[in-house]
Amino acid sequence: MDEDIGCLNLRWSLALLDGLIQGGLRQLVLSPGSRSTPVVLAAQQRPELSLTPILDERSAAFFALGLARASGAPIGLLATSGSAPAHWYPAVIEAAHWGLALVLLSADRPPLSRNTGASQTIDQTRLFGAFVREFHDIGLPHADANSLKAVRALGLHMLLRNRGRRAGPLHINLPFKEPLIPAGDCLPGEPQAQALQWPFLLGTPKATKHPPGLSNQDRNQASIEPPSGRGLILCGPASAGDAKDARALLACAARLGLPLLADPLSGVRFPCPPDQPLAEPPDETLQACVIRHYDALLRNTDVANALKPDWILRFGLAPVSKSLGQWLAGIPSWVVNTGEHWCDPNQDACGLIQATPEELASTLASGPVSRQPDADWINLWHLAEEQIQTLANTHLKKGSWCEAQFIQQLLQAIPPGEGLLCANSLPIRQLDTWSYSRQEPLWLFGNRGVSGIDGQLSTLAGLNAAGTPTWGLLGDLSFCHDLSGLLLVGELQRPVVVINNGGGRIFDYLPQRGLADFERYWRTPVTPDLGALARSFGLAHQLVRNAHDATEALSGPLTPRLIEVQIDAEHSRHFHLGFWQAVARTPVSGQPAP
Amino acid sequence: MDEDIGCLNLRWSLALLDGLIQGGLRQLVLSPGSRSTPVVLAAQQRPELSLTPILDERSAAFFALGLARASGAPIGLLATSGSAPAHWYPAVIEAAHWGLALVLLSADRPPLSRNTGASQTIDQTRLFGAFVREFHDIGLPHADANSLKAVRALGLHMLLRNRGRRAGPLHINLPFKEPLIPAGDCLPGEPQAQALQWPFLLGTPKATKHPPGLSNQDRNQASIEPPSGRGLILCGPASAGDAKDARALLACAARLGLPLLADPLSGVRFPCPPDQPLAEPPDETLQACVIRHYDALLRNTDVANALKPDWILRFGLAPVSKSLGQWLAGIPSWVVNTGEHWCDPNQDACGLIQATPEELASTLASGPVSRQPDADWINLWHLAEEQIQTLANTHLKKGSWCEAQFIQQLLQAIPPGEGLLCANSLPIRQLDTWSYSRQEPLWLFGNRGVSGIDGQLSTLAGLNAAGTPTWGLLGDLSFCHDLSGLLLVGELQRPVVVINNGGGRIFDYLPQRGLADFERYWRTPVTPDLGALARSFGLAHQLVRNAHDATEALSGPLTPRLIEVQIDAEHSRHFHLGFWQAVARTPVSGQPAP
Repeated sequence: MDEDIGCLNLRWSLALLDGLIQGGLRQLVLSPGSRSTPVVLAAQQRPELSLTPILDERSAAFFALGLARASGAPIGLLATSGSAPAHWYPAVIEAAHWGLALVLLSADRPPLSRNTGASQTIDQTRLFGAFVREFHDIGLPHADANSLKAVRALGLHMLLRNRGRRAGPLHINLPFKEPLIPAGDCLPGEPQAQALQWPFLLGTPKATKHPPGLSNQDRNQASIEPPSGRGLILCGPASAGDAKDARALLACAARLGLPLLADPLSGVRFPCPPDQPLAEPPDETLQACVIRHYDALLRNTDVANALKPDWILRFGLAPVSKSLGQWLAGIPSWVVNTGEHWCDPNQDACGLIQATPEELASTLASGPVSRQPDADWINLWHLAEEQIQTLANTHLKKGSWCEAQFIQQLLQAIPPGEGLLCANSLPIRQLDTWSYSRQEPLWLFGNRGVSGIDGQLSTLAGLNAAGTPTWGLLGDLSFCHDLSGLLLVGELQRPVVVINNGGGRIFDYLPQRGLADFERYWRTPVTPDLGALARSFGLAHQLVRNAHDATEALSGPLTPRLIEVQIDAEHSRHFHLGFWQAVARTPVSGQPAP
Repeated sequence: MDEDIGCLNLRWSLALLDGLIQGGLRQLVLSPGSRSTPVVLAAQQRPELSLTPILDERSAAFFALGLARASGAPIGLLATSGSAPAHWYPAVIEAAHWGLALVLLSADRPPLSRNTGASQTIDQTRLFGAFVREFHDIGLPHADANSLKAVRALGLHMLLRNRGRRAGPLHINLPFKEPLIPAGDCLPGEPQAQALQWPFLLGTPKATKHPPGLSNQDRNQASIEPPSGRGLILCGPASAGDAKDARALLACAARLGLPLLADPLSGVRFPCPPDQPLAEPPDETLQACVIRHYDALLRNTDVANALKPDWILRFGLAPVSKSLGQWLAGIPSWVVNTGEHWCDPNQDACGLIQATPEELASTLASGPVSRQPDADWINLWHLAEEQIQTLANTHLKKGSWCEAQFIQQLLQAIPPGEGLLCANSLPIRQLDTWSYSRQEPLWLFGNRGVSGIDGQLSTLAGLNAAGTPTWGLLGDLSFCHDLSGLLLVGELQRPVVVINNGGGRIFDYLPQRGLADFERYWRTPVTPDLGALARSFGLAHQLVRNAHDATEALSGPLTPRLIEVQIDAEHSRHFHLGFWQAVARTPVSGQPAP
């Protein structure tokens, strides 16, 4: 433990201020105290920040309120631990109602000293209740580069998010251990160089007399010049809400000549059902940008390296594919949305583009784009995509029947314009890997907000009750987790498919596999007789054990029933591992992999 | 970064479970998941814990509720991150109303991945609102021994506290980084060996059909046999609420033959004003146990080593003296209170004794105490105490006049039975060092709950308005922090003393001294003309620059006025450093210090 804690505290504070400054912070009002020392030391190193010491925190907060109101800019407040930040409360409430971005930095003692009677130590979490737009209790400083990147990103992103909606106070609680001052020389960690070629929304905010809400001024400053280098459009779940959104996303990709990676739940991978029956059919030339096989193709290291982009335009939620998410880490991103949500789990966003897909597409269509699309770049992607498709087709034919083939059968069986709810954990991942394009519109649903295995049957009943005939694709655990959902089977209009592979088989692909009592504490198989269970709620039951059974079951009438697909999980695992190994071994563009 | 994160996660979980098991946890109901893996791995290593896997978290929670209701014991629940723990909510609410100790362990993603759209990542802080008795978001695991000790203590103390009041659900949020599984061999950190010689309240809870509230059964199991070795009674602020409590504390010390370290705000250092005018005067033989000069005497390393106790009986809040607090770290402690509050900032408590001072004193008086008091032990303390008293007297006489002499003059001037509010930061520390005993009763007040420098004038007005004529002793910063308190001077009955030493002089004794812009950002002197300020609110003003001025000002009429004591802060600093150096150099018991 010869770590210099004081230096760690300082670097942590520097990283946070770095992000806040990039997000537009220029003024910090501080009240004297001991625990807040690391942040003062950091602020003293940043000439962009103007520092104002004010003794009484209540007075400091109302002073900051005045600054914020007159400038329209975010204003920082810093106080030591204990009752000190509580003096801000009246001004915070005022700021919340007026819509002013006070950035509340409360220094704190270490979390584990709460409730011990330690001096000036209170529970500062949620200190301002519902009167702050965001609250972050970020724990003690960590020295590793990823943590420094994350705390820096928090500063920037919090301010970006705050501009994306009605502004308001933001609270970060900052615990520090002693010593608070570096013991020796303390160089800041290497700052993450972040490209900022699309600078709109990132400049120093202009003074305005109308601070509440976001003026249109920012959007008007938009340049449509894309960053240099090779870009990529990432469409996570919920990128497109309807066919119009989907068309706009494809238009953006076509205009910029970029590959568009389409998550199964993005609304772009499959044609969205049109809002109106007479809407024009999807344009096939637009579909040419769409990439679906990223999860498989990234298993080839050479391909993964060759296809790495320089920047990303991000839509929607985090993609289902974990390997995609990891591969994208560290690449500068622009998050595109209207400001209500935010998705950037790797914390690489350097900008927020506040726009709907349609707004972005129309801006891109109207303005000149100076650089020509890079044909080599998009071709590289198409080549890789085709190679995977060929490999996959071979593997699907020669390999033993499992979820892979079944998913393709299921997608062929669902009538145009109907829906499918795919449960989380293994089913959605397998759907991601094995669902190719289909020409007929499909509503694909999935609870990817929090990605739990819970409530799937009940959600499915709700989807059907809302009018869209919707199929279900659930694992056995998801099904049994929501047994109360069986009380709602009267609402169903279409079959529910349960992949019965004997418990939480996703763990068979995770490091937990092989731990002591793995079966009992992780895989946790459940053993009810699904047929008897279904019948006890008046639901017909069909058992599927092979491709032939599946064809038969799926070609049956469009009625609610339980289709239980029994999968030999070990066979399935070998099928998938074999496929990924084949992908990894396949030479790229005629060159053998090392 | 070649740290084994998986091993760190496991050690962290082992430490927490260790504390929970010592606090009485015997059953853990877990729902399968990935993020919760470190806790499962830890639980598998503890044969004391019975593990029950239940798929649906809602069902798991109601099952745990049944276990808790039938057994009266705390029952653990473990779930992975995201929506999983939210399924507990209905059962948590039921447990809160019935008074059952569900121990809710929610695994979580790292705090900095919140709000980024990362999978299964929600803000789990305060997930159960007001329906849990305690909520702890303890941040990512740390490897150092102090952190492991703290998380272990949290587990034990949370369960001890919960038994001290009406029981209820407790929530710990446990963020873990990946990897979740140790890479190689992972030995648990050395567990803190904690003596448990007074085992009551620490045994496995008995099954009972009447779980709500705490039965008297526990208290009846009390042994009055003190632990072996040399003990010490620590009376922090608010140990005694009245003269009866104070007498009981002194009686406990006398009965056990232990030194009693009396914080100035303990209610034991000075005689408490009697509740009724005719109560008997304090017993002088009882006063013999009281130690007042600990802060000074611990500056001598030999003395500090010779006087180190084997165990502590703790009353009240954390003592004002920081050196005392640090010196006591690592010593097994019993926290004595009725269960409403808890003070153990070093997290050394191995037991909670639920009793008022009177209840403890009467138990001790009624039962036999087998071991004889250790006369050498108490004599060692008296010797040290006398030595300091002599040194201090010399230093006070020959040193230049500063706060030290003034505090003694002030304590002599306050009439018997009146009050004094001492502000935090430097004034209360100097009062701790320089206030010797006085025979006349005194109410000494101080806001040591959170120890802020805020609201002192207003508090003083309130104390006076409640009927007790109360003096004030404030620093210049405390005074100016609460300028609105000047609107209440009409309530005052006695003088307010303001020590004007030019800002936050406590920082002159802290490592911040000498930092760049030290004066501007830490010491932050304020420069109003205190005389003019006082007069503008109709308050007379007296300036004190030396002992003679002080005598004159303090012997004036008992009326509200502002006594401004101007101190040369550099002289004062040299006076104090000189005294501590003299203490450090003084040989102990005739032996020269090394």
